[in-house]
Amino acid sequence: MLHKPGVTESLARFVVTTRWDDIPSPVRHQAKRSLINFFAVALAGCRTGPVEMALRSLAEFSGRKQATVVGRAERMDALGAAFLNAASANVHDYCDTHLRTVIHPTAPVAPAVLALAEWRRLSGPDLLLAFVLGNEIQARIGLAISPSHYNRGWHITSTCGVFGAAAGAGKLAALDERQMVWALGHAATQSAGLCECLGTPAKSLSVGNAARNGLWSALLAEQGFDGPPEPLAGVQGFYHALAETPDLSLVTDGLGESWEIMATSYKPYPCGFVIHPVLDCVLDWRRDHPTAEVTDVAVRGNPLLAVRTDRPDISTGRESQVSVQHAVAAALVAGKAGLEEFTDACVRDPRVLALRGKVAVARDDAFSTIAAAVEITTADGKVHKLSQAAARGSDVNPLSDKALEEKLRTTAAGWDSHYDANPLISTIWALDESADVSALASLAVPR
Amino acid sequence: MLHKPGVTESLARFVVTTRWDDIPSPVRHQAKRSLINFFAVALAGCRTGPVEMALRSLAEFSGRKQATVVGRAERMDALGAAFLNAASANVHDYCDTHLRTVIHPTAPVAPAVLALAEWRRLSGPDLLLAFVLGNEIQARIGLAISPSHYNRGWHITSTCGVFGAAAGAGKLAALDERQMVWALGHAATQSAGLCECLGTPAKSLSVGNAARNGLWSALLAEQGFDGPPEPLAGVQGFYHALAETPDLSLVTDGLGESWEIMATSYKPYPCGFVIHPVLDCVLDWRRDHPTAEVTDVAVRGNPLLAVRTDRPDISTGRESQVSVQHAVAAALVAGKAGLEEFTDACVRDPRVLALRGKVAVARDDAFSTIAAAVEITTADGKVHKLSQAAARGSDVNPLSDKALEEKLRTTAAGWDSHYDANPLISTIWALDESADVSALASLAVPR
Repeated sequence: MLHKPGVTESLARFVVTTRWDDIPSPVRHQAKRSLINFFAVALAGCRTGPVEMALRSLAEFSGRKQATVVGRAERMDALGAAFLNAASANVHDYCDTHLRTVIHPTAPVAPAVLALAEWRRLSGPDLLLAFVLGNEIQARIGLAISPSHYNRGWHITSTCGVFGAAAGAGKLAALDERQMVWALGHAATQSAGLCECLGTPAKSLSVGNAARNGLWSALLAEQGFDGPPEPLAGVQGFYHALAETPDLSLVTDGLGESWEIMATSYKPYPCGFVIHPVLDCVLDWRRDHPTAEVTDVAVRGNPLLAVRTDRPDISTGRESQVSVQHAVAAALVAGKAGLEEFTDACVRDPRVLALRGKVAVARDDAFSTIAAAVEITTADGKVHKLSQAAARGSDVNPLSDKALEEKLRTTAAGWDSHYDANPLISTIWALDESADVSALASLAVPR
Repeated sequence: MLHKPGVTESLARFVVTTRWDDIPSPVRHQAKRSLINFFAVALAGCRTGPVEMALRSLAEFSGRKQATVVGRAERMDALGAAFLNAASANVHDYCDTHLRTVIHPTAPVAPAVLALAEWRRLSGPDLLLAFVLGNEIQARIGLAISPSHYNRGWHITSTCGVFGAAAGAGKLAALDERQMVWALGHAATQSAGLCECLGTPAKSLSVGNAARNGLWSALLAEQGFDGPPEPLAGVQGFYHALAETPDLSLVTDGLGESWEIMATSYKPYPCGFVIHPVLDCVLDWRRDHPTAEVTDVAVRGNPLLAVRTDRPDISTGRESQVSVQHAVAAALVAGKAGLEEFTDACVRDPRVLALRGKVAVARDDAFSTIAAAVEITTADGKVHKLSQAAARGSDVNPLSDKALEEKLRTTAAGWDSHYDANPLISTIWALDESADVSALASLAVPR
């Protein structure tokens, strides 16, 4: 009789047996795009309060300087660096998204594989392969339980991210199949994170832990620290405890034939993605009408736009990320919609405040969530009709490589105006030629 | 209108406002008993494979020597020490139990408060108060969701233990009420652990994390790292994600009037508790009949005894912990039932093997799970009828202080035959007089 492998065993075998040669060229390229975006958002987040506090706290316990903390002079042990870089990447609402699961896929995986690859001086293809596989594993595990798992209150980026970090780090550590099953089991029993914490620094705890604990899961398995044979689908395992009616076929069907990283979206603006098509319209128009005085803005979009972002009265930068009125007003005032346009200071700007009251939102089922129409009325009485069918950054209208580079240059400039991002960017594009990636992350630290 | 505090706020207020003077004398004494038992089981576990491997791995990342690892020469940062001591205490099936929740209450809480108290040189009353409060919080949170939470696959010692560790460490750190709510929120978003891992080293991961992450939750909150206002009962909070129909009244009703630590059971034997009344009978009989040749043993007990432990054919020490046949046979051969009687070597002992086949188990609804009857037939044809109405160590027949001391002396002797446990024991009994407990754990390390 043939042995029918369990879900965990199937995933482990896939990760262990897949080679760099098996990764199609577009997938390799997308992995680099994700890393460009990762450094962009990590540089944006690396000096925020949650990261500062976590760094100060972890430094009390760590004595080793194994890995780079992106954007910081401090170095840290590999586990601590993985935690901090994941927290930095995810602290703003600016990191990448796997839309079917709403997992932010790079935040937990990239920090785990970067820390281990730096510490052990591994190669670029090793790093990219591990990153792609970690990405695939977490997306597959999450697909089986979406959307009910997230709706139950689980922060899926954390609960599934820990598997991605474990699989990626385990691939770098060259685990065998049995060890990979253990690593996924160690991830399962450390899977945690609640949506109740979104909007507070506590969000960073579970995302940071996903990277840290996933990496540790792989390192423990490498040592022979063992676990159960079927941690995912076992009767007291991950799916039984954290899911309602998992569809396990989504975990394993077509493994290695399609690649979930190809479904990654990168955000051009650090706010709720339903606002993005509106911002596309407003920013394009403002570019052509830099001085026109706006008297009225009528926004029309999918009902979700109003449900989630019809918030004319807000007082903090955090709230501004989910206020279409603020986003439109700030974009009209600044001519851009970057991190500075979603701060407390921008929310208090009298020019933005005045415009905010002139923005109305209408619901229209005819629009998808990536489409919107905007009518801007100017002081001369003219009405300007604008529309966007597919928001920039959505899966059908992806950000170009150039736009991703520009996102990194812009957040890097906000981090350090004298910093030259070009060496980092060119190193990422050339990763498949690199024999030793240990210097990669150090291209994103203060000189 | 009066503000009705939420569940988390109520717990936080209780922990923050309760003083040493509020703790009744029997509760103080029980806390010391739990610590005696803790050192007994931690010394038993501190050289097992999972602890050795975790220690070797953590040592690669830690550079600080802030706290004692029980039974070991190595010192470790406070977070790492908390992890390792919790793992040591729980690695055998020998630690204490809060029967209504099946939480092993001391394993996650004591390591967190011991590490912090040692690091900051706090007093004995501070330590005991924090330990009692942490114990209370985790039991209360667990009572609301028992038994469905455990039955779903959650290892409740880990998932609720992290709250106990956070509350205890937070009390030692003198958090205010708002910070204590944050600490409990940080615990909630780190709550993890699956029963699927029981019986493997991976079990130690979630138990160790409960202590480590609970301690870190408190330290982060102390720094101002904030979280949501209602992490327990919020719509995307702990109870929504990890429980079916929580009875929140069990969390808060009568807080400070009754103390769950009084319901702690301490095990006289390192095996499943349903076997305990059987062992009481067999060991008492063997003491009076040291040389009698046994030809047959008929055991009668609650159906759960047979369901869980009717295992005549086993091959490992781990399995032996849930085999009534093995337990009876080993106790008859050795005249005791300690750690040595539940090892691979004992399972292979031909004398034990021969006796194992002579033990039969019958189910009888008339027995509670702490009661049993045993009929031993000897070679001379005599039948010896024995019974135990309430097992030693159960809530209605608790282990005496002397028996707990003896448990510690016995496991300590197995750890180091030259070790004198008396200074540790007398220091624990005198903890309420101690102004500085920083030397306490160091009484349980190699000289």
